[in-house]
Amino acid sequence: MNQELVGPMLRARGYLFVKLLRVGPAGAERPAVLAEDGTPLDLSGVTRDIDGDFLAGGLDDARAAYAAGNLPELAPARIGPPVARPGKIVCVGLNYRDHAEETGAGIPAEPVLFMKAVNTMVGPDDRVLIPKGSVKTDYEVELAVVLGGRARYLDSPDEARALVAGYAVSNDVSEREFQMERGGTWDKGKSCETFNPLGPWLVTADEIPDPQDLAMRLSVNGEVRQDARSKNMIYGIDHLIWYISQFMVLEPGDVINTGTPAGVAVGRPDAPFLRAGDVMEVEIEGLGRQRQALASHEVSG
Amino acid sequence: MNQELVGPMLRARGYLFVKLLRVGPAGAERPAVLAEDGTPLDLSGVTRDIDGDFLAGGLDDARAAYAAGNLPELAPARIGPPVARPGKIVCVGLNYRDHAEETGAGIPAEPVLFMKAVNTMVGPDDRVLIPKGSVKTDYEVELAVVLGGRARYLDSPDEARALVAGYAVSNDVSEREFQMERGGTWDKGKSCETFNPLGPWLVTADEIPDPQDLAMRLSVNGEVRQDARSKNMIYGIDHLIWYISQFMVLEPGDVINTGTPAGVAVGRPDAPFLRAGDVMEVEIEGLGRQRQALASHEVSG
Repeated sequence: MNQELVGPMLRARGYLFVKLLRVGPAGAERPAVLAEDGTPLDLSGVTRDIDGDFLAGGLDDARAAYAAGNLPELAPARIGPPVARPGKIVCVGLNYRDHAEETGAGIPAEPVLFMKAVNTMVGPDDRVLIPKGSVKTDYEVELAVVLGGRARYLDSPDEARALVAGYAVSNDVSEREFQMERGGTWDKGKSCETFNPLGPWLVTADEIPDPQDLAMRLSVNGEVRQDARSKNMIYGIDHLIWYISQFMVLEPGDVINTGTPAGVAVGRPDAPFLRAGDVMEVEIEGLGRQRQALASHEVSG
Repeated sequence: MNQELVGPMLRARGYLFVKLLRVGPAGAERPAVLAEDGTPLDLSGVTRDIDGDFLAGGLDDARAAYAAGNLPELAPARIGPPVARPGKIVCVGLNYRDHAEETGAGIPAEPVLFMKAVNTMVGPDDRVLIPKGSVKTDYEVELAVVLGGRARYLDSPDEARALVAGYAVSNDVSEREFQMERGGTWDKGKSCETFNPLGPWLVTADEIPDPQDLAMRLSVNGEVRQDARSKNMIYGIDHLIWYISQFMVLEPGDVINTGTPAGVAVGRPDAPFLRAGDVMEVEIEGLGRQRQALASHEVSG
């Protein structure tokens, strides 16, 4: 069958999946697609994993296999991060006006970029570890963009959207003392173990007509701390991809954390930093919900 | 044979290889070991690649295969970076007193860390591209440390050395305007395409008795710009690994660029920044020599 026709045909029949996920123990997840009844179906006969190679070229094969109707069901199990082994996680700082103001940093003249180690990625409901010596562990709900194409010196933001594989909920957990009071760049407070819960799903781009108008919310122990919409980004997704591509080459599977709105602990005298036993709930409209309990670093990683 | 005896036995017989490399076109390199006569011998029957898994557990198998004497010769070809797909490249800033002084930044109270995108890695003699719009592309000879073990909250620097797989020459190419005048962290000027020539070899740790006393040199168009010794690091390798492990988990295959000595263009009014057509030569005692020609970004990456 002409692969270009598969997507529209499946959609017309109500067959088009939109949520990719990875199910199983950490480090041994299986690639899966979420059926409409919420059952994960095993994609490991179609692809080794949900990684850059798959996102760059394997989606139509997976759609065809799903349409054929014989993907095996997976038993309910832990959900891992929905993308395996990204080459990098690029983060955007101070990208919501209210957050830039609460930090006292002011509105940036151009996007602020930093990096997060890729082995910070954990599943959406995995526990998050308070680093050794930390007294300022903080949360950040963010809309994550996962690349499906290669972005190098894009001529304009108009070229960006076609390179997006999909979107996911991200929690850009941060240690503010390590980030801002220990010398050097922010990376020191951004790359601690377990500091990037991602998922539950990678929602394919064609199912999110306007990623710039999604409700975003984060609560700690049931109290809402961040409550915003992605339309309040200073620099939108297309601009960010174009901008980043002027400084580095984005590859399929790479993740961009597009910045957090106001309400983080460092910006609110009334909101304490995170402590072991706290519970974060993180949600973005259409992209699902995360829940992480905080634990001490003494729990083995 | 008892694997623990293989290393010493091979060494006693003069068989122990010390230089691992990857040979072939970019993206399709084969793992290899350098025979004493300089011929690369194919390791692809022993390991898929020289990556974290191999460095964590495969070295003895490779030594045994080499000792058996039937590894096939590889035809001379391009040399790639000696480690494949590291999870991260962690860089140390301002780690030589003379360099910290030349930048005007002063001596850091603790190590300065930043990250470099892993897809910046290229082979030791590949061309380096001047980024689009760049007027301040600069060089930095550095001693790279490649991890063979996992480092998480090490109790002391004494635990670090056993986790080192080996050492390599690194050129931490940097764009100073992107790094320091475009807002945000240094990462923006450190992750441009082709900005991390690595190699030619990964020299295994047991062959470098004192990595803190190696001569390092970098020249541009035949003129020596950096000429130093690794003993002048402010924070030594063991301290750095211990220190980094307090902030993030280092994994096998990860690369640490341990900082550059004085002589970079940004610190020398007499030394121009790099331009297309320039040639860098980079050398560290015992670790080999690199040679990169600079080209315009318009050359396809």
